[in-house]
Amino acid sequence: MDIATVLGIVSAFGLVLVAIFMGGGLQLFVNIPALMIVVGGTLGTTMINYPLGELLGVFKVVKNALLTKNISVNELITRFIDFAQKSRKEGILALESEIKDLKDEFFKKGIQLSIDGLEPQEIRNVLETEVEFIRNRHQLGAEIFTTMGSFAPALGMVGTLIGLIQMLQSMDDPSTIGPAMAVALLTTFYGAIMANIICMPVAGKLKTRSKEEVLTKEMSIEGIISLSNGDNPRILEQKLLAFIPPNKRETAGRNG
Amino acid sequence: MDIATVLGIVSAFGLVLVAIFMGGGLQLFVNIPALMIVVGGTLGTTMINYPLGELLGVFKVVKNALLTKNISVNELITRFIDFAQKSRKEGILALESEIKDLKDEFFKKGIQLSIDGLEPQEIRNVLETEVEFIRNRHQLGAEIFTTMGSFAPALGMVGTLIGLIQMLQSMDDPSTIGPAMAVALLTTFYGAIMANIICMPVAGKLKTRSKEEVLTKEMSIEGIISLSNGDNPRILEQKLLAFIPPNKRETAGRNG
Amino acid sequence: MDIATVLGIVSAFGLVLVAIFMGGGLQLFVNIPALMIVVGGTLGTTMINYPLGELLGVFKVVKNALLTKNISVNELITRFIDFAQKSRKEGILALESEIKDLKDEFFKKGIQLSIDGLEPQEIRNVLETEVEFIRNRHQLGAEIFTTMGSFAPALGMVGTLIGLIQMLQSMDDPSTIGPAMAVALLTTFYGAIMANIICMPVAGKLKTRSKEEVLTKEMSIEGIISLSNGDNPRILEQKLLAFIPPNKRETAGRNG
Amino acid sequence: MDIATVLGIVSAFGLVLVAIFMGGGLQLFVNIPALMIVVGGTLGTTMINYPLGELLGVFKVVKNALLTKNISVNELITRFIDFAQKSRKEGILALESEIKDLKDEFFKKGIQLSIDGLEPQEIRNVLETEVEFIRNRHQLGAEIFTTMGSFAPALGMVGTLIGLIQMLQSMDDPSTIGPAMAVALLTTFYGAIMANIICMPVAGKLKTRSKEEVLTKEMSIEGIISLSNGDNPRILEQKLLAFIPPNKRETAGRNG
Amino acid sequence: MDIATVLGIVSAFGLVLVAIFMGGGLQLFVNIPALMIVVGGTLGTTMINYPLGELLGVFKVVKNALLTKNISVNELITRFIDFAQKSRKEGILALESEIKDLKDEFFKKGIQLSIDGLEPQEIRNVLETEVEFIRNRHQLGAEIFTTMGSFAPALGMVGTLIGLIQMLQSMDDPSTIGPAMAVALLTTFYGAIMANIICMPVAGKLKTRSKEEVLTKEMSIEGIISLSNGDNPRILEQKLLAFIPPNKRETAGRNG
Repeated sequence: MDIATVLGIVSAFGLVLVAIFMGGGLQLFVNIPALMIVVGGTLGTTMINYPLGELLGVFKVVKNALLTKNISVNELITRFIDFAQKSRKEGILALESEIKDLKDEFFKKGIQLSIDGLEPQEIRNVLETEVEFIRNRHQLGAEIFTTMGSFAPALGMVGTLIGLIQMLQSMDDPSTIGPAMAVALLTTFYGAIMANIICMPVAGKLKTRSKEEVLTKEMSIEGIISLSNGDNPRILEQKLLAFIPPNKRETAGRNG
Repeated sequence: MDIATVLGIVSAFGLVLVAIFMGGGLQLFVNIPALMIVVGGTLGTTMINYPLGELLGVFKVVKNALLTKNISVNELITRFIDFAQKSRKEGILALESEIKDLKDEFFKKGIQLSIDGLEPQEIRNVLETEVEFIRNRHQLGAEIFTTMGSFAPALGMVGTLIGLIQMLQSMDDPSTIGPAMAVALLTTFYGAIMANIICMPVAGKLKTRSKEEVLTKEMSIEGIISLSNGDNPRILEQKLLAFIPPNKRETAGRNG
Repeated sequence: MDIATVLGIVSAFGLVLVAIFMGGGLQLFVNIPALMIVVGGTLGTTMINYPLGELLGVFKVVKNALLTKNISVNELITRFIDFAQKSRKEGILALESEIKDLKDEFFKKGIQLSIDGLEPQEIRNVLETEVEFIRNRHQLGAEIFTTMGSFAPALGMVGTLIGLIQMLQSMDDPSTIGPAMAVALLTTFYGAIMANIICMPVAGKLKTRSKEEVLTKEMSIEGIISLSNGDNPRILEQKLLAFIPPNKRETAGRNG
Repeated sequence: MDIATVLGIVSAFGLVLVAIFMGGGLQLFVNIPALMIVVGGTLGTTMINYPLGELLGVFKVVKNALLTKNISVNELITRFIDFAQKSRKEGILALESEIKDLKDEFFKKGIQLSIDGLEPQEIRNVLETEVEFIRNRHQLGAEIFTTMGSFAPALGMVGTLIGLIQMLQSMDDPSTIGPAMAVALLTTFYGAIMANIICMPVAGKLKTRSKEEVLTKEMSIEGIISLSNGDNPRILEQKLLAFIPPNKRETAGRNG
Repeated sequence: MDIATVLGIVSAFGLVLVAIFMGGGLQLFVNIPALMIVVGGTLGTTMINYPLGELLGVFKVVKNALLTKNISVNELITRFIDFAQKSRKEGILALESEIKDLKDEFFKKGIQLSIDGLEPQEIRNVLETEVEFIRNRHQLGAEIFTTMGSFAPALGMVGTLIGLIQMLQSMDDPSTIGPAMAVALLTTFYGAIMANIICMPVAGKLKTRSKEEVLTKEMSIEGIISLSNGDNPRILEQKLLAFIPPNKRETAGRNG
């Protein structure tokens, strides 16, 4: 989990909790039925909206987006230059031992196809199809969280309306009005938290992580094709640097 | 009806009902005139908006989307491979007996055109036109539900305004204010339920089901053209696998 | 006026009126100054927005959309087949007597151009330009109603704010607060009715009617070109059937 | 200023004023600090958003849009036909005296380029670049007013929140609550008026006027090119008529 | 910092402060926990949404947008004409001494590439890639501020709900209700200020500055290519003038 996500979750949730504790304690803000109507109702409407398989799949996508650290572009360039040098000295088959320990399945698959002697154009087709499906999976994930983020406040309002209607029907004892209304507002509160501190930022995260991951994968494709073609390591580096903004590129160049 | 839809409806509606019963019972939340103004008014405005034929047609589309189970892509691939093998051994005419019991009209029609000896390009034209009209019908359905989902809260507000104005004009007895306001809020409640637990999730469902169905139909077209061309079953499988994400493809490959 | 529009207007307005009468009568809901501020203000802001000629033209477009019944596509196909047969037997000049009684100006003009011996490509250009202008006129109409539908609630809010501010400045007699607030809410009520039961559904209607009309006109163009080319009636029918969804096409085929 | 704009401003503002006077007089609705916070704040945020030069330029664009009357398309066609006849009889140089008194700078420049003997393609390039910049200027104007229309209600809300917070902190004397709240609501009222009766309709006006003006300019370009080419006046008329909807074209034809 | 930004910030913030002081002083509007929940929560959710590096980078982009003054287009044209004259007289190498003192890194780099003798097409590729990355960085900045501007009011509402729920639970002493509600509303107030007076105008500023800067950079590319080609200064001027609206061009022409 990258540092910004940790800091973000701590500051957003932490500050809400601080405000709650300063005002008298957490027990005023815990109400299981209200929580059930917002969380359960939001999941329910989302389950009507999307097939179960896609809904369950999204949690894996989120876990990856929050926990997995992408390889940095500079590291990737360094690795490709090493591979290109080795490949030119010892032949492309020598890479087989190198890729054994790598965790990046996409990268391994690409190098393997290259070792297997597929034509560069075929390698590109196979890998780009895979990137396309990855991009679709990420987009679906972001879309599902955006949908949840729009249902949550609506179900919060439904819960508040239920509470208000019940309260208004029996206003005999004025001293009960305040607490009853407080409870009614809890669902609106849960809906606002769920939408604005969970669903929407996570949807945004999925979008930005998707862009990063797709960029890394596209750099990998370019590098693998370049390896397959037996390009000079210098040329390979130039091709990969074109993916990085010029102001970050100098550092990359220095490291590579 | 797939399991996610059932679970979704049960959890969304169930939790609302639980919250209602916990607060004193359903009778506070049943008000026929309020229901009429929201449901009737929403249907009315939607009927001004769309021709009657299209409105009635949408219910058939929804029924299909909620109840019909699409053939799985793996099943479809298996079936195509069987057909391709039979067609290569016994000729394409042998498929005539196979398709008799199938329920999938689109598939049957495609195979029939193939048996009738139409050129592959003509078969593709006929079937793609049909897919195009199916897609339009689904889009119209989703659009109608989205329209209803935007009219429902508006009519809920209209109903609440009517109730509030009537209540405010005769505030002589303070004890009646609460219940009158509760009744006024009921239309807002109905509007929120209708929009957020019915119309919007169903519109979303129609969109996701449409994508699935169109994908299956496009796979079928590719398969039928491949059959018409007398392709080798192995090649036909490769062509169909290209429609499935690589991570799901291995399972499909194992089955096929 | 088609049956759905009638039913829609009756149910939407009728149910609002029923709710009003059940709560004590219409007189609470009639307030000429409030009506003037919402209706007059909405028309005023729309008149700042659009040139007068376009605003006045929109009412003609609406009248057409609500009252004129489009010729059904099946009827249109039948008519074209009759014309094609007559034209093949007696020459295209024989159609001159046929079109005299027709009300559809666009159709008449097209046939006339065909009789006059213009090249098919020229006929197509003339008629498609006309369809383009018709489409623009419809879009402008829908846009004007959408604009009105967004100004109406805003002016309703302006009126309510005026009423609230006046009421709050002189709250000496608590018994007047209720009725004053009821009157203030009336403009919000009018704005909601005007936007959601009139402007938005009519804007939607204009869009759906436009699609229908443009489809009919495009079928007519295809038919007229086909007539000009002296196509076989069977081929002409095939060309026109391509505009209709396959599931409705069989009925059309049976009739034709 | 065209009649619709006058009528629109009179009816929208007039009706608001009538409602204000009927409820007790204007003095309740005049509050200089509230006005300053809405108008000044909206202008301030807009000045952060756009460079000063563009902001000042927009007022000139608005003045032109509201006050200048575009030449009617029929007049324009008539003028071009006259010019074409004169040019064919006396040569294109004879137009030099004709254009001296014209106010339309764009038109004059185009004719002058034509008299100067530039190639038609060059004239088209020069004039189309100018139309492109005019279109951008109009779009920017509409965008600035839309931005102001979205900031105004937000600043109205900010002002109302300031008033409410101040009032709530010192609620000792209940009789002051009403008037204090009335004053607090004034900023919301000003924000709503500024957005819905000024900024949004003016933004809409700029868009519709821009479309008209660009159309007239494009007709002018076509006419000037046609003059340069020495086209027959009849052909020139045909080319220009193609810009007008067929139902308005007959009148134009009669006049021309 | 340009004058419009200064004026805008002064008028927007100043007027809010004036309204606050007129109503009794600033102390009512300072509440550290409320400020923390809005500012901290907004930054937190934004940090979940975007990687830390991008978030920190945005402040540099904002600083540049608010403080750096772009070179005026007229100045730029004058400078290019000087360079072109010098280059024609003394050869392109003579420009090396000229560019030493310039601050504009982009411009320097382009001239340097030109002096180094790269092909014009290669120079264009290098510089356009750089412009593309600059544009992306600006768009990301504007997007981050828009995201903050949509989270801020949501967190303001969350804070207000916390305050309201706490207040409603303990309404024993009516005299505390007002101040408690005032404090609860403060977070909504902070959210509105943060969104509408800071984030949204800054997002808008970044967009307009980006357009300006990209335009200047594109003019520079055109000028550098023209220098590389050894174009006549007059032709170079014509090429650059094409980037400026004709009504501003005459001044530029006079200066150049």
